[in-house]
Amino acid sequence: MSGRIDVLYHVRSDARSIDGRAKAIAIEQSVEMPVEPIDDPFVLEETVGRVEAIDDLGGGLFAVRIGLAAITTGMRPGQLLNMLFGNTSLQDDTVLVDATFPAGFAEAFKGPRHGLEGLRARVGATGALSCSALKPQGSSPRALATIAARMAQGGIDYIKDDHGIADQSYSPFAERVPVIADAVATEAAKTGVPTRYFPSLSGNLDDMRGQIALARSCGLDGVLIAPMLVGVDQFLTLKAENPDLAFLGHPTLGGLRITQSFLLGKLFRLLGADATIFPNYGGRFGNSKELCLALADGARRPWMDLKPCMPVPAGGMTLDRVPEMLEFYGSEVMLLIGGSLLSTKERLPQETARYVNAVRSFGKR
Amino acid sequence: MSGRIDVLYHVRSDARSIDGRAKAIAIEQSVEMPVEPIDDPFVLEETVGRVEAIDDLGGGLFAVRIGLAAITTGMRPGQLLNMLFGNTSLQDDTVLVDATFPAGFAEAFKGPRHGLEGLRARVGATGALSCSALKPQGSSPRALATIAARMAQGGIDYIKDDHGIADQSYSPFAERVPVIADAVATEAAKTGVPTRYFPSLSGNLDDMRGQIALARSCGLDGVLIAPMLVGVDQFLTLKAENPDLAFLGHPTLGGLRITQSFLLGKLFRLLGADATIFPNYGGRFGNSKELCLALADGARRPWMDLKPCMPVPAGGMTLDRVPEMLEFYGSEVMLLIGGSLLSTKERLPQETARYVNAVRSFGKR
Repeated sequence: MSGRIDVLYHVRSDARSIDGRAKAIAIEQSVEMPVEPIDDPFVLEETVGRVEAIDDLGGGLFAVRIGLAAITTGMRPGQLLNMLFGNTSLQDDTVLVDATFPAGFAEAFKGPRHGLEGLRARVGATGALSCSALKPQGSSPRALATIAARMAQGGIDYIKDDHGIADQSYSPFAERVPVIADAVATEAAKTGVPTRYFPSLSGNLDDMRGQIALARSCGLDGVLIAPMLVGVDQFLTLKAENPDLAFLGHPTLGGLRITQSFLLGKLFRLLGADATIFPNYGGRFGNSKELCLALADGARRPWMDLKPCMPVPAGGMTLDRVPEMLEFYGSEVMLLIGGSLLSTKERLPQETARYVNAVRSFGKR
Repeated sequence: MSGRIDVLYHVRSDARSIDGRAKAIAIEQSVEMPVEPIDDPFVLEETVGRVEAIDDLGGGLFAVRIGLAAITTGMRPGQLLNMLFGNTSLQDDTVLVDATFPAGFAEAFKGPRHGLEGLRARVGATGALSCSALKPQGSSPRALATIAARMAQGGIDYIKDDHGIADQSYSPFAERVPVIADAVATEAAKTGVPTRYFPSLSGNLDDMRGQIALARSCGLDGVLIAPMLVGVDQFLTLKAENPDLAFLGHPTLGGLRITQSFLLGKLFRLLGADATIFPNYGGRFGNSKELCLALADGARRPWMDLKPCMPVPAGGMTLDRVPEMLEFYGSEVMLLIGGSLLSTKERLPQETARYVNAVRSFGKR
């Protein structure tokens, strides 16, 4: 792998110190030692990070572009994160904003296998999609299956486990997934909508392989995965081993000083998330409209020959916001409404149907 | 698993909003939906998070203590992180400061197997220890082995790979580790100091298992691991599979809004790091003396029947600071000096010996 990753950091500094600070980041994210004693020409010319540009953004903030040698990533996802932001994540003054990758990264990391279009195709849709989450934490498999059945009765496109539902004693994966998968399949056969259920993976690589095998045996063709929690190398391994499965990326533990638009929009896409969940504006997270649109567009706009990844805004969304959100994001989106839908309890099939119809009536299916 | 984890968050808020904000965190980190529609008594009484206390710290900062049901963690490390801070990590106003665990956590996660005393015993020491890092990124295995040999000639206790040295083409793990291990063993036989070399693990769980097998075949008895990069479930699995190996924890990608004293001091210890590297005060990271001491003491002071974990301050340390650092931390410490030692090039054996002697002459060995 040759070439350099062009990494954009925003650094708080005074004008007098920014040159030194930029050089320090270039060193920290590459050789991590003083350059003076280095005499190996390969190291000096290839692996030492380079300050490419510094722009004063005003108000004590600087945009610093640093060229990091692609070869130092070994083209592996964990090492890529390590080189982009590992030690610098421990320094308060710096935010990782964006990165441009040289040729070869798209081919090496492959991005989404199914992506936006694959998720539409699975449910026979051409427009925006509907999704909800099974909650609350602590419910039995049977209780979760009842909720899933009601959602499927409403004709929803995708149902996922809450990301907090792992493999706990009150709802072990091996008991939960078959019951829910069966409930969803039963209702889907009645409605004619091929509703999908994506269970949440957790544990180590072996555990997740076992969970995928079980999900397959239940006829499921996709899963929920939290790349920052399970480790990005596990994510890529599971993706490579399961080319037919769709992977819905969850943002939990993503609160590093990395912009969400880069981490959840572009980096998760490069790593291969077919869809990426993120906190929507105006919900219980503090994201701005600008950030959400940048994130969604980073996920779905043309980029490095990667398939588009489906943006999934979420986080305290309510049914009355469906038209506004579709107006904002357009039809290349999957909405995720959990809690407010679950609050309707016995009326869940009807309320789900209302939600699904609101999504379907926007643009053509 | 019964009982509650008592989690301390610091939240920026105004006095009018803090009650609601605290409740929102308790919900976000547990059932993640409105409580009103929940009618399952187990969920209401057991799994819903509880606000235990709110203290006004002044200046718009509040200390919020929340009780999270231990059962929701499934006693697995990734899910533990998910419940402690997963989605809340995406919210700018909240920092995870500390947590108190109920009975059973020490037994389930086990903590360090070797810890502070085990690391001393490996090199026949009773006082402070010396450590350095192999750099720079881009060097060949032979070049790194030359550096390692010089350090071993100086009688250093521990040598580790730079955390950025993974499995890249210019220094593949399988080529690098045998050459370096051999160089260190050869010099150690001459000096009589049983210098240890800990190579850096990377990749997925399978890759790391292979790397450990190779390290074992080279006679090594410890490794460097970055829990936040490889995923904490991988870390615990490798620890369980290799009870005789010592694990040196690296902080890379640890820059979440989790205090370093909790994440790198206590949580890494609970998960089983025998030693934990952290950015020292007065180096190239911005940590205060107070934070460093809290972190070191969290790692080594009596806590939940766990063995003490060795604190390893690092990050731009220089030889002239050895006496001051030992005065500050006492003898329950392993110093890590990398770049400034490497800058001495051919004089590395002599400078290493000076470093080692400064460490050894502090307190009794």
